[in-house]
Order: sequence, then structure tokens, then C-alpha cells
Amino acid sequence: MRTTLIDVNDLEAIAIGAALYGTGGGGDPHIGKLLAQRAVRQHGPTRLITLDELDDEQLIISVAMIGAPAVMLERLAETGPLITALRVLEEKLGRRAAALFSVEVGGLNSVIPFSVATQLKLPLVDGDTMGRAFPQLDMTLANLQGISATPLALADEKGNHLLMHAIDNPHLEKFARSITMDMGGSCYSAMYSMTVAQAKTCLVQGSISMTQRAGQALFAARANHLDPVSELLRVTHGHCLFKGKVIDLQRQIDGRLSKGEATIAGLDEHAERRASLLYQNEFLMARSGDKVLASTPDLICVVDLETGEPITAEQVRYGLRVAVLGLPCVPQWRSSAALQLVGPRAFGYDADYRPVEQLTQESL
Amino acid sequence: MRTTLIDVNDLEAIAIGAALYGTGGGGDPHIGKLLAQRAVRQHGPTRLITLDELDDEQLIISVAMIGAPAVMLERLAETGPLITALRVLEEKLGRRAAALFSVEVGGLNSVIPFSVATQLKLPLVDGDTMGRAFPQLDMTLANLQGISATPLALADEKGNHLLMHAIDNPHLEKFARSITMDMGGSCYSAMYSMTVAQAKTCLVQGSISMTQRAGQALFAARANHLDPVSELLRVTHGHCLFKGKVIDLQRQIDGRLSKGEATIAGLDEHAERRASLLYQNEFLMARSGDKVLASTPDLICVVDLETGEPITAEQVRYGLRVAVLGLPCVPQWRSSAALQLVGPRAFGYDADYRPVEQLTQESL
Repeated sequence: MRTTLIDVNDLEAIAIGAALYGTGGGGDPHIGKLLAQRAVRQHGPTRLITLDELDDEQLIISVAMIGAPAVMLERLAETGPLITALRVLEEKLGRRAAALFSVEVGGLNSVIPFSVATQLKLPLVDGDTMGRAFPQLDMTLANLQGISATPLALADEKGNHLLMHAIDNPHLEKFARSITMDMGGSCYSAMYSMTVAQAKTCLVQGSISMTQRAGQALFAARANHLDPVSELLRVTHGHCLFKGKVIDLQRQIDGRLSKGEATIAGLDEHAERRASLLYQNEFLMARSGDKVLASTPDLICVVDLETGEPITAEQVRYGLRVAVLGLPCVPQWRSSAALQLVGPRAFGYDADYRPVEQLTQESL
Repeated sequence: MRTTLIDVNDLEAIAIGAALYGTGGGGDPHIGKLLAQRAVRQHGPTRLITLDELDDEQLIISVAMIGAPAVMLERLAETGPLITALRVLEEKLGRRAAALFSVEVGGLNSVIPFSVATQLKLPLVDGDTMGRAFPQLDMTLANLQGISATPLALADEKGNHLLMHAIDNPHLEKFARSITMDMGGSCYSAMYSMTVAQAKTCLVQGSISMTQRAGQALFAARANHLDPVSELLRVTHGHCLFKGKVIDLQRQIDGRLSKGEATIAGLDEHAERRASLLYQNEFLMARSGDKVLASTPDLICVVDLETGEPITAEQVRYGLRVAVLGLPCVPQWRSSAALQLVGPRAFGYDADYRPVEQLTQESL
């Protein structure tokens, strides 16, 4: 049992860690951080709690933004519509949430729940349902456990709000994405209401403080003139997949997703080689020639080679010198049922999943 | 004050009249009729009531199918999802409907409420919010009176259902159409919950029995060997705009709408002339050369020249010999505010509205 009070400085580390674990997607956490910091200044620090601080029958609800990161970057996030979505859901359930949680760790959605939690004086659970970020709301460990995101509430900043009941999470995902487009490409949601007993079966516990540790390691490396990339690899148990310079970039927004591919020309030990990074909101596949370097559900993180600063798919640009890191996903994502949901083929890539640590071992 | 009991035979007349007033859209009422007749056989006749049989503060709700007529033709309508939508809406409002009503008269949506009403032992109001059919749910006299369709419930036959709150009816229309597409191109809704006092400001009262009279006139004409087209014109106060043979047809389904144009080569007094009919679900514009014969919001109805049988836009085919009738819309649609909502320009046609009786007078 452990309650941590998260203050303005803690949010700095969490935001940069969230950008790392966002694997290129999930929206730029910088905006979410500013929002959360403002809320913390106004309402006091957020209480980050563990599930065992709650009773099993208590209700927790996740709040999240939905939409293409490119759009979320252009529209300022607000807490008001998130609170509307939460209230619409609570009204339907006839119960108030005892705590909030993040649907994903990484990007905007691991920071923005802090602003709502502190404003409503609710604790935030140190955990999420992905242990990373994915582009669809049905790509959760909760879904794998048969826990529905239904009912799901959506709201926008104009005052529109909807409550959705779907027979399964894929239907819900479809409905939510359509309305997200109608709401201008991004919107605010409350979903995956569940009891604490259910949460214990499907939350990746400790994932928020995991992002905080990554951010702290980066700050410490900079303060102590250590190599930031090595420090990040150390605290994340990650592997360096590739180092190089971005030489080509193709991107498109298909309405629901930012999609694209970045080509990187190798430097140092990777000189004379090229790697390509494919993303759909998140980086999902890293290849070099025929060889897969890492693939979803393992985490593919791109950071600045010198500073270790995480780089989102939207921020990748010609000439950037980057390190591509591969972080093992949580073990729950490696079952065959899980891989059907979030493995390479689920995103249209013709490759079988192999753990990043195996792939890295082979190329040594 | 007048309660009419609608039985299986009455539904025959109502369905054919609904096909006429459907002005080519609104879905084929034949399917709705079979559904309503089955319900009436099972549960007894439907009580068709006037608004003054209810108290001003009582609640009435409309039930309707949403979607492209071409899709509704292919999917069998059911009452179950309409009842689901109604119950979702009632639960939100915390009140039960004292009666149901039709959002539009014409097509499937003026028949299908009978099946729900009789199954639930609720009366059906003899009235609707359009006095005709239009392709969008914000194109109602209720909307013109500032009465919102929100909250709106949508359901499908799989068990998905949504409750929507929009800041205005155009937003609601957008959300509803997207979900309709996600639900396979058609779905079931409950909307425009209002008090009887509100209904008195915006319902076209008597519009269901108006369709019944048109159907009865057609049956009587056939029984008595009268000209069906003349009889229809007499009871509807309509004008014959054109008689001819369909010689060309262009149609497309853009997802939300069936759209197209039919070209008709004149017969009899219209020989040597051509007319074109433009539709977006409903026939919205009839032209001959540069001349507008009639346009929305007046009703443009296509019937078989010999039998008077109404023909939907989906049923129009090469070689059909048809009469094109122009029926004056209800006067409420002729204000400038109303014409902004449903006049020719609202559908992208570059023409100002002029009443069909004026246009007809000029061409004599």
C-alpha cells in the first residue's frame, strides 16, 4: 500500500516518461502536462495510489482523449469535457468513481487524467490497461479479460455528449472513432468502468511510476553528464535497435489514424545499413532490410541520440539523429490471444511476433 | 377529439398513401406495413389519436428508422430495436411516453410506428413533424420551433445502442448518420421527445389520416374504374406536373443518401418535352429544360400512369410510364426560415423556391 503525492515537478518526469512509453503516439504529453500542472497548482498534488488502497467492490473509471495525435496537437486539451464524459457515465451507472485510471500509459493519456483527478479530488490509480499505448480502445488487457469498455461516454468542448452501449469492444471502437471524426478529429471519453476486483485482473500496476522513473533517469543523466540513451535503456530494460539519421518520411492521416513510415540511415555500428519504422499513431514495426528489429506489442521508442528526448511520430523530421529503442512489453501481451489482438498481423503487417530480446540476441 | 382504430385493412390504405407522400424516399412502406399488420393481428388495432386526447404536459416520442432507403429495402425491419431505442430514451428522461408519433409522413416511417404502438399498447398520434418526408432528422417543423431532437437514442438489431445529446439538431444529424453507417446503413431511433403542448406548435396534425385518404381514393378509383391519377390529384389538392416515360436513370449511394436523377420523355400533352427528377432519398426537384416544375419543400410524387401506384426513387426504372405530381407542402414550410432549412438551396440546387401552384399556373 503506497500513496504518492504527485506535484508539479513529478509531472515533468512523468510527462517525459510518458512521451517515451508513448512509442511515438498517444499525443504529445507536453500539453497534458501543462494542463495537469495548472490543475495541481490550483487544487494541490494528485494522489497516486495502488489498487490495494481501495476496496474490491469500489468503482474506478478511466478518462482519456481519443483521436489522431496530429489533431490533438492542434487542439488544446481541456478538462471540462473529460469531467462531462465522466459525469455522463457515472449518471448512467448510478455510482461515482472512487478513483480514476489511465487507459494507456504513454502520451497525453497518461498525463491528462492527473488534471481531472486533482480537480475532482479523486485519487489516480498507478496503472493502466495497456502497459503502453495502442491506437484502438479495444486493444487493452481489460478487453482480453472480457471486461467491456461499455458503457462509454464521449464529449466535446462544444457541449455535445454521447453514451454508448456496444455488444463488444470492436463495435464500440468503431462507433467511438466515427463520432471522434464528427467531433473534429479528437474528443474526450470516460470508459472501462470496473470494480477494483476486476482491475486487479487487467491493470498493469505501477505503470505510471514506471514512466516517472524513466523521466527521472533522463533528468539524472543530463545532470550528471551520463549518456541519456544508455540510462534510458538501463531503467527500461530496453535494447538499442538502431542508431541513425532520418532520411525519409512518409505520412498520412486517414481520418482515424496518423500513419506513416520513417527511413533511417545508420550511424556508428549501424553505418551502411538502413532501418524503417512503421507507425499507426504508435511505432509498431522496426525493420532493417528483411529483418524485423522489433514489433508490436513490444515497445518501439525513438529518442534523440544526444539528449535522449523522446520523439513522437509527428515530430520525426528529416535529419534528426535518433536512437531506436526496443522495450519488452508486459508478459500478458505475449499470449496467442493477445497477439491476435495487438500482434503485427492485427495491424496488417505480414510478420509473426517474436520477442524483442530474442531478435536482439540473434543480431549480436 | 377522435380516436380511430386502425386495423389490418386500414394499414393497406395508409401504406399506399405513405408511399405517395414519401415522394420517392422514406423507404418502401410495404415492409413496414407487413410488420404493422402482423403486430395488429397479434395485439389488436392501433389507436390513432388526436393531440387533444392527451394532456398538455404528457410526453410523446417519435420512433423512426434512419438510413438510406436502398439499404432499408434490403434489411428486414424489426420492432425490437425500435423498442430498445424508445426504452433507452425513456430511461434517460425518467418518464414513459404517453403516445408515439411519426417523425415523418411518407414511406416506412409513417407505417412502422404502428407496429411499435400496438405492441406496446400505446396510442399513435395522427401527425408528424414534416408533413412529408425529408432525408435529415433536423429538417422538421419541430426544429424550426426550436424543439430539439436531443436526447436521441439509436439501436441496431445486434444489441448496440447509443444515447446522444447534441447542442443542436445539425450536430445530432451528423452523429446519427455516422453511427447509422457504422450500424450497416440503417438503424432504429427514438427522438424528438416533447410535451403535448410543444407538439401542438410543431406537428402537422392529421397527416397520417391524410395518407389513409389518399390510399382509400386510389383503391376506390380502381374499384370504380376511375382514372387513379385524377383521383389522387383530387384528394391531395395536387397538380399534374408531367406525364411520360422514364428514359434515363443515374443513381448513386453516397453512404448516407441515395442520390440520382431520372429523365422522362413526355407523353400526351407533354410530347416532345423532357423532364428530369432529382432526388436525394426523396424527389426534391422536377425540371423541364430551364423551367422548374416544382421543388422542395413542395412534394414531388411519381406514380404509375395507369395504376396510380406510387413509385419510389429506388423503383424508378427504364420504360416506366409515370405521372409526376406536385403537391403543395404545408404552409409552415414556406416561411423564409423554413426555406433556409429545406428549400432547394439547402440541397445544393441553384434555384429559389416558388410554390408549385404558382409554377403550374404559369405554365398553363
